[in-house]
Amino acid sequence: MKDPHILSAFDRDLEAVQAHVLRMGGLVEQALLDAAEALEKRDEGLAQKVRAGDEAIDALEQQIQSECARLLALRAPTAGDLRVVLSVMRIAAALERAGDYAKNLAKRALVLSNMAPLEGTSASIQRMARTVVLRLKEALDAYIAQDVAVAQDIRARDREVDQMYNSLFRELLTHMMEDPRNISAAMHLHFIAKNIERVGDHATAIAEQVIYLATGEVPGDERPKADLVPGVSTLEG
Amino acid sequence: MKDPHILSAFDRDLEAVQAHVLRMGGLVEQALLDAAEALEKRDEGLAQKVRAGDEAIDALEQQIQSECARLLALRAPTAGDLRVVLSVMRIAAALERAGDYAKNLAKRALVLSNMAPLEGTSASIQRMARTVVLRLKEALDAYIAQDVAVAQDIRARDREVDQMYNSLFRELLTHMMEDPRNISAAMHLHFIAKNIERVGDHATAIAEQVIYLATGEVPGDERPKADLVPGVSTLEG
Repeated sequence: MKDPHILSAFDRDLEAVQAHVLRMGGLVEQALLDAAEALEKRDEGLAQKVRAGDEAIDALEQQIQSECARLLALRAPTAGDLRVVLSVMRIAAALERAGDYAKNLAKRALVLSNMAPLEGTSASIQRMARTVVLRLKEALDAYIAQDVAVAQDIRARDREVDQMYNSLFRELLTHMMEDPRNISAAMHLHFIAKNIERVGDHATAIAEQVIYLATGEVPGDERPKADLVPGVSTLEG
Repeated sequence: MKDPHILSAFDRDLEAVQAHVLRMGGLVEQALLDAAEALEKRDEGLAQKVRAGDEAIDALEQQIQSECARLLALRAPTAGDLRVVLSVMRIAAALERAGDYAKNLAKRALVLSNMAPLEGTSASIQRMARTVVLRLKEALDAYIAQDVAVAQDIRARDREVDQMYNSLFRELLTHMMEDPRNISAAMHLHFIAKNIERVGDHATAIAEQVIYLATGEVPGDERPKADLVPGVSTLEG
């Protein structure tokens, strides 16, 4: 952080909005961890709390977008300053979607609490959730530190979560093949896993904004994807 | 369109970038239709064409985002003009994601062409794809015409696609219950259906930008969702 005595009006406004982004990041991270815990422990109260909490995340995103629009209108930033504002808008949008996935996970946790559990799967999902939350944290830290090397590293480690997803996908297939009564629960768990993988993609997208800030270019869409399950390969998206 | 003789520099730049958005919309719509047809007809050549075509869509999005950033830096628009630029950026991002879903559909169509078909399902998916493409077209038209009433109507009709998805979901469950050998194909078709439903959500998001332009506020997240399948309810996201 710069010396507050030499901050411009733009810098002051920007610091305020960046503080909101970090607060939003914290809320989203907690929502994801809570939702995964609600699933694992069949804790309906916690799941309801996550569902209800998404409104605050959405409101914070709206506020950040308005603040950014106001910054653009009032300060008319150019070059690097403009890129910072645009990147904040994109990061807030990515966090909002990650928050939606947490809410969706909580909703499915409620549905699944009335179904027979599929052994081992919710623990795997909790591990996956912890991994993407860590990536989200790292991406936001890299953003604040404007650390391109860390951002590149986060981008390169996109595969980790994909591989966890693939391994869970195989577990779910086995449960479904073994007993058709598992199909409904497995479909929900599959969506949860896919959505957590998508949160990982949003963490990568945030890391890419760090690269955008440094270079003015967003890196291309083609990251290496781990497609490990033959015939039922996962295919991102 | 206004009389070109009285256009400001901002208006001229904006018209150019809006023309790119419409071209992008056209490419995305065609990609979705082609991908669904490739699935229905097991046409591997067409599926490969859609996969290859996504690069052009991504490049066009990058170009639109750069043009918008340039517009913000050079023209420093405020109030309504600023909102137009921000909405163009969001619409381009929504179209880019819709294009990704078309590419993903094409990839899964290639995988599915080597599996036993599940009767009726790919025709249902083609109907779903046609419906969302129509909604996408309508949303872009509403945007160009800045027609808030049409945009509200598109938002209200979000349920149609959800209901098509729910009905297909039930078909897929039946196929899986009947024969576990159908599970892999059904999982792919399920993802395709969910992704098409998401394209519908992006069409709604574009319609919401029309409302944002008129009011300065993006309508809230809570649209009514059709949750028709008891116990295996679909849950957006």
